[in-house]
Amino acid sequence: MKHILIINGANLNLLGKRETDIYGNRSFEDYLSELRTIFSDIKISYFQSNIEGEIVNAIQRSEGIDGIVLNAGGYAHTSVVIRDAITSITTPVVEVHISNIMNREEFRHTLILSSVCKGVIFGFGLYSYELAIRAIK
Amino acid sequence: MKHILIINGANLNLLGKRETDIYGNRSFEDYLSELRTIFSDIKISYFQSNIEGEIVNAIQRSEGIDGIVLNAGGYAHTSVVIRDAITSITTPVVEVHISNIMNREEFRHTLILSSVCKGVIFGFGLYSYELAIRAIK
Amino acid sequence: MKHILIINGANLNLLGKRETDIYGNRSFEDYLSELRTIFSDIKISYFQSNIEGEIVNAIQRSEGIDGIVLNAGGYAHTSVVIRDAITSITTPVVEVHISNIMNREEFRHTLILSSVCKGVIFGFGLYSYELAIRAIK
Amino acid sequence: MKHILIINGANLNLLGKRETDIYGNRSFEDYLSELRTIFSDIKISYFQSNIEGEIVNAIQRSEGIDGIVLNAGGYAHTSVVIRDAITSITTPVVEVHISNIMNREEFRHTLILSSVCKGVIFGFGLYSYELAIRAIK
Amino acid sequence: MKHILIINGANLNLLGKRETDIYGNRSFEDYLSELRTIFSDIKISYFQSNIEGEIVNAIQRSEGIDGIVLNAGGYAHTSVVIRDAITSITTPVVEVHISNIMNREEFRHTLILSSVCKGVIFGFGLYSYELAIRAIK
Amino acid sequence: MKHILIINGANLNLLGKRETDIYGNRSFEDYLSELRTIFSDIKISYFQSNIEGEIVNAIQRSEGIDGIVLNAGGYAHTSVVIRDAITSITTPVVEVHISNIMNREEFRHTLILSSVCKGVIFGFGLYSYELAIRAIK
Amino acid sequence: MKHILIINGANLNLLGKRETDIYGNRSFEDYLSELRTIFSDIKISYFQSNIEGEIVNAIQRSEGIDGIVLNAGGYAHTSVVIRDAITSITTPVVEVHISNIMNREEFRHTLILSSVCKGVIFGFGLYSYELAIRAIK
Amino acid sequence: MKHILIINGANLNLLGKRETDIYGNRSFEDYLSELRTIFSDIKISYFQSNIEGEIVNAIQRSEGIDGIVLNAGGYAHTSVVIRDAITSITTPVVEVHISNIMNREEFRHTLILSSVCKGVIFGFGLYSYELAIRAIK
Amino acid sequence: MKHILIINGANLNLLGKRETDIYGNRSFEDYLSELRTIFSDIKISYFQSNIEGEIVNAIQRSEGIDGIVLNAGGYAHTSVVIRDAITSITTPVVEVHISNIMNREEFRHTLILSSVCKGVIFGFGLYSYELAIRAIK
Amino acid sequence: MKHILIINGANLNLLGKRETDIYGNRSFEDYLSELRTIFSDIKISYFQSNIEGEIVNAIQRSEGIDGIVLNAGGYAHTSVVIRDAITSITTPVVEVHISNIMNREEFRHTLILSSVCKGVIFGFGLYSYELAIRAIK
Amino acid sequence: MKHILIINGANLNLLGKRETDIYGNRSFEDYLSELRTIFSDIKISYFQSNIEGEIVNAIQRSEGIDGIVLNAGGYAHTSVVIRDAITSITTPVVEVHISNIMNREEFRHTLILSSVCKGVIFGFGLYSYELAIRAIK
Amino acid sequence: MKHILIINGANLNLLGKRETDIYGNRSFEDYLSELRTIFSDIKISYFQSNIEGEIVNAIQRSEGIDGIVLNAGGYAHTSVVIRDAITSITTPVVEVHISNIMNREEFRHTLILSSVCKGVIFGFGLYSYELAIRAIK
Repeated sequence: MKHILIINGANLNLLGKRETDIYGNRSFEDYLSELRTIFSDIKISYFQSNIEGEIVNAIQRSEGIDGIVLNAGGYAHTSVVIRDAITSITTPVVEVHISNIMNREEFRHTLILSSVCKGVIFGFGLYSYELAIRAIK
Repeated sequence: MKHILIINGANLNLLGKRETDIYGNRSFEDYLSELRTIFSDIKISYFQSNIEGEIVNAIQRSEGIDGIVLNAGGYAHTSVVIRDAITSITTPVVEVHISNIMNREEFRHTLILSSVCKGVIFGFGLYSYELAIRAIK
Repeated sequence: MKHILIINGANLNLLGKRETDIYGNRSFEDYLSELRTIFSDIKISYFQSNIEGEIVNAIQRSEGIDGIVLNAGGYAHTSVVIRDAITSITTPVVEVHISNIMNREEFRHTLILSSVCKGVIFGFGLYSYELAIRAIK
Repeated sequence: MKHILIINGANLNLLGKRETDIYGNRSFEDYLSELRTIFSDIKISYFQSNIEGEIVNAIQRSEGIDGIVLNAGGYAHTSVVIRDAITSITTPVVEVHISNIMNREEFRHTLILSSVCKGVIFGFGLYSYELAIRAIK
Repeated sequence: MKHILIINGANLNLLGKRETDIYGNRSFEDYLSELRTIFSDIKISYFQSNIEGEIVNAIQRSEGIDGIVLNAGGYAHTSVVIRDAITSITTPVVEVHISNIMNREEFRHTLILSSVCKGVIFGFGLYSYELAIRAIK
Repeated sequence: MKHILIINGANLNLLGKRETDIYGNRSFEDYLSELRTIFSDIKISYFQSNIEGEIVNAIQRSEGIDGIVLNAGGYAHTSVVIRDAITSITTPVVEVHISNIMNREEFRHTLILSSVCKGVIFGFGLYSYELAIRAIK
Repeated sequence: MKHILIINGANLNLLGKRETDIYGNRSFEDYLSELRTIFSDIKISYFQSNIEGEIVNAIQRSEGIDGIVLNAGGYAHTSVVIRDAITSITTPVVEVHISNIMNREEFRHTLILSSVCKGVIFGFGLYSYELAIRAIK
Repeated sequence: MKHILIINGANLNLLGKRETDIYGNRSFEDYLSELRTIFSDIKISYFQSNIEGEIVNAIQRSEGIDGIVLNAGGYAHTSVVIRDAITSITTPVVEVHISNIMNREEFRHTLILSSVCKGVIFGFGLYSYELAIRAIK
Repeated sequence: MKHILIINGANLNLLGKRETDIYGNRSFEDYLSELRTIFSDIKISYFQSNIEGEIVNAIQRSEGIDGIVLNAGGYAHTSVVIRDAITSITTPVVEVHISNIMNREEFRHTLILSSVCKGVIFGFGLYSYELAIRAIK
Repeated sequence: MKHILIINGANLNLLGKRETDIYGNRSFEDYLSELRTIFSDIKISYFQSNIEGEIVNAIQRSEGIDGIVLNAGGYAHTSVVIRDAITSITTPVVEVHISNIMNREEFRHTLILSSVCKGVIFGFGLYSYELAIRAIK
Repeated sequence: MKHILIINGANLNLLGKRETDIYGNRSFEDYLSELRTIFSDIKISYFQSNIEGEIVNAIQRSEGIDGIVLNAGGYAHTSVVIRDAITSITTPVVEVHISNIMNREEFRHTLILSSVCKGVIFGFGLYSYELAIRAIK
Repeated sequence: MKHILIINGANLNLLGKRETDIYGNRSFEDYLSELRTIFSDIKISYFQSNIEGEIVNAIQRSEGIDGIVLNAGGYAHTSVVIRDAITSITTPVVEVHISNIMNREEFRHTLILSSVCKGVIFGFGLYSYELAIRAIK
């Protein structure tokens, strides 16, 4: 049985409550149950933190599992250390974003992590995560 | 029955023959058969051209179908007119790339079309197209 | 009797149908009739293409007529070859845009063609074309 | 009867005397008479100043008339306050330039005012003013 | 009775000890007592952390109180995630800085948070905080 | 008794009339009366001009009074000469803006005067002036 | 017997007619006869198009011949897709320009194709083509 | 007898009073007497204004005299209209600055006027003016 | 007896395991023993964290010891708060990097901390730390 | 009999020894003999120096000969004085490079000398020199 | 008796022969005699070299004389080492240029040396040197 | 016995005399004796020149010795040819600077040579050389 880890970065704990016009009004926990139902043959772990260094820790600990789905939130546009954590493990990482970051503020067009990820998916709402899991499978 | 159009831009007619270390060695026609088998409940049309204006024409003609999967090739980084064509129709467009454009040359990091597409998927080889069709469904 | 050619570039064939909040809901063919009525003493030819190179061809063929009114659409912001075509003929060219390109996206503020045209008119809707014809007269 | 105000900015009082290879050798006063003859059904007022703040004053005072034809001269490339004055009134403003500013020095390619004007006309010599008045009508 | 939270970011725990020529030699705790005396009708909570993600946490927890006075320290110039936290709550945030950041190093002139705050106050030493509380009242 | 001068720059004479969604609908004269009531122990002088050089003159004349509250309007983003006037006197100057300039157009993010002022306050509507007077006191 | 293909891009069909001060007054067809006489032991094919995508087509078709001499005209400064076409074949390509592009407009100093060509020759008028054929031999 | 006009721009009326560490403590009027003594064979007129447009006026009026010594103060780094005024007359203009502008703030390194002046002299204190007069002679 | 603190930032806990082609295959703990043997007359403390703010905490706590050897990892290229922490103490800090950061990715060429450190050493593998300790001695 | 001078700049004395994967393993002296055999009707002089100013001297001395083939090595990307030397003589200069500088480091894409040379040839190994001599002939 | 050294940099040995439209047709030696006649009370030494490092040497040797007039030619726009040489001596240096560098090529607008010189004079032909000597006196 | 060469570039012959607040007041010759005493088992050669090309010569001659300690002075920020010389030999090069170049002028932050050196050490005064020799050992 495969093992996939979903890592959500800063402010994604507010999903369903925060800026619902951009991010929708469903909590991630609720969506996670659905994902686990869809992919009943995969173990899906989940980690969320608002602290950059804890995301680094989580990535480092993931060496050996089958894949990471990473939505680093705002850190996707600034974090060299998360990038370095990704290159320090052999587990493939798929970057996702809920919204279409390319039609939002200019600073969200800078993608620090993408070049060291396997691939990138954004703009499909929460469905981006399901696509990412399929991509890893 | 849904109707989806796949548009491939410049040089993608050489898929399977050109730079196989980046793009793999399978022709798109071959892959297309597989896609049609997987999505037997969807009509999948296909259009390829090396000419920017013909891609504009193809997009304009697509008004009313259910979705476009667009890999504009090199035009993805330069074409204002394809961008304008996308905004001129109501059909949702999903942008795909076979390779991870963010770990290639600097000029491939400029994405002219992304902000007017529904979402973007890249880096998963030909499988990017399958994900895009799922995203439209 | 004077002879003027109107050249419309990419996506302008959709005028009246596309993004009517920006471009209005009148087709260019309809407006062209009105123009021919207003300027009954001028022969007004018309050419439209979504293909950059065909606009080059049209400009090259125009050597010797009295003036060109050129709305290159999205190519106005990217096309070196249309610029080169303009400098290769002696016919004066007036650049027009329907919308006020300076209060739209940043990339529409780059005007590749303007410096080799006689003059530039934009922001007055379809009426920009009538002004351009008057300017050539 | 309509009322239009022509505002000329810095150094345009020298028209006909200064750099005649660029601006021609006709004074604006002379041309103004011709304009008033052509548009006998319109009241055409005229204001010129070399002082940025007085142009702001003139624009502020124009609230309620039918349109402004504005050639801000060199201020067109630097003046935030004239821009703010334009947005502070509801009268439509058409920006004109006598020369084709896009084939002159680089700093003349920056247009601070254009995005808050109705439209822009340049490159047709003094005839630019006549076109602008037609555009307002 | 109103409730205001003061959040101090990185290195502000050293106030009164560190670089006293720039920041003065009074500890924030000492100043806080004074503030509570001045605004005896307001409940003033206080939070300080050197960890970016904990500032995010503190902001998220503040939903529902009457206002936040935020001095993010060095994070004011780099943190997208604190910015995202501010937009994720409805509580108004006032940004303050003790020193005049505009006459210090170039990198302190970039203000990542300001555009999503209610307003900004800087350069008045510790008194900036008092002004910010008045602004929220 | 202390003496403070409020200087308002370009277009601020239209306050209450112009762009009321951004600036509110109260005239500055009306607000000034309120300020004088609040600060009955301070002499508050007032100067407004749309002309950059007259603002320079007003600042030069202020040598010796207790403080200046300066809202230079659009000149805040372009004027080297007002900056030079501020450094030529010993009177402390506090820069204010009514709106949050950091969430408006890009060109309003350039602050030419701030580094030579005592401090900066913006985003609190007309109340910014009251805060500035308190800051000088 | 070797086989070399000369590809001329946009506006080069006007050679001898257009801007003769820069490009000379000899037609390319005339010069081509001379080239074929000089290199009687080489088969020299010729293709010209103003359409970017047709140049892509021509390059793709050339797989297997001995070399391409490519003067892409204005496309040399903008075309990612011609660049991609060059990397998709194994035939060596030599880039030529008739004029010295480095002492013309700034935008002609950007060379998109050069890094994927074998070498580059420019500034020697039509003689640049002869040098290029020698370089391929 | 020759006639030279010295034009001093913004804040130079404070010479001798303002920032004496940079500009020295001698008033310009005092220095002017000395200049007139040194150059007893030249008529030296003097004009100072803090208003950009009045400097334009002064330059326009100078057509026909033998030379202008221009220290535009802060306008030297921003004023397109003063530049245009200089090109509109045939009188040679020498630009001077009292301080060495190249070892002051970055924004003083931009010289808008220099390219249309005869020559430039800076860094020699008030003596820069004497050198400029010699240069015109 | 002197006291030196070595601080390692993000991802340096993986030394010897991660990207061994760049960083070598020796763990830092192993190397630390060697260092303590070499410098038997110095107390060498060690701190590692992936969390930016904890590095700030560690630096703040170091006031009074004899020197810090700091390898901030990826934070060296982005962290204003670590920089502020360094300037808030009087202990000298020497910045080290294991690899030659100048022949790696462009973003590693930006050194935020260097200007407030005593000196910088990079490119000598783990030996960089030994050199740094000698430099502090 | 014609007279051509070949000037080689910095580090080209190491040809055949240095970085043979880029520059090949043949010494220039050896190649020079071959060139003299090929062009037996031309006098070919040769000069090499690692010193920028001596290259200037060599160019200055060449006034009157029939042509210079110049490979300035690294100075091609930085030297204003060699550029000035070229414009100070009437002898035509052809710039050559052995490697294709456009697919090497970014700083080699800046060509300081090219715009004042007759033409440019690069990427053909040592054969670039032979082509350059033919171009001068 | 005072002692002044004139240093001329690259290509200035060709004065009177090279680009006479820009630099005039008088040799510097000829002009030097005139200067010595004018300033009969000053010892004027002269040094010219095309080699950057020799100009450094000449400046280093000048410690103790009364002033240097330096026209570094093209090195004025690129040389950090000449700049360092100037700061390493206490002798005042006046930078001169014969032509008005600000209306020539963009790269001549960068002045590396000016900020460490006493002052700068350019645009007055050879007369610039006479003014510079007066400035030192 | 190992052989190390120290190369000092421009203006370093003035060490101990020039800008002693930055560089200290000890001559390099004096320090060199000390170095030779410390490293009695190493042959230490020394070369200094102010001429860029002679530094290139010295590096080229060093092929085969055990290491170079290079302080190129101002050339470290501009010299492509010294960089090319370093890559043309196999001897490892360690770059040193006496001062902390990162807290000096902006132009000293550009390090042209570093990426082709083994490692870099700066900011430790003359002691930087000793560290560099240890690094080579």
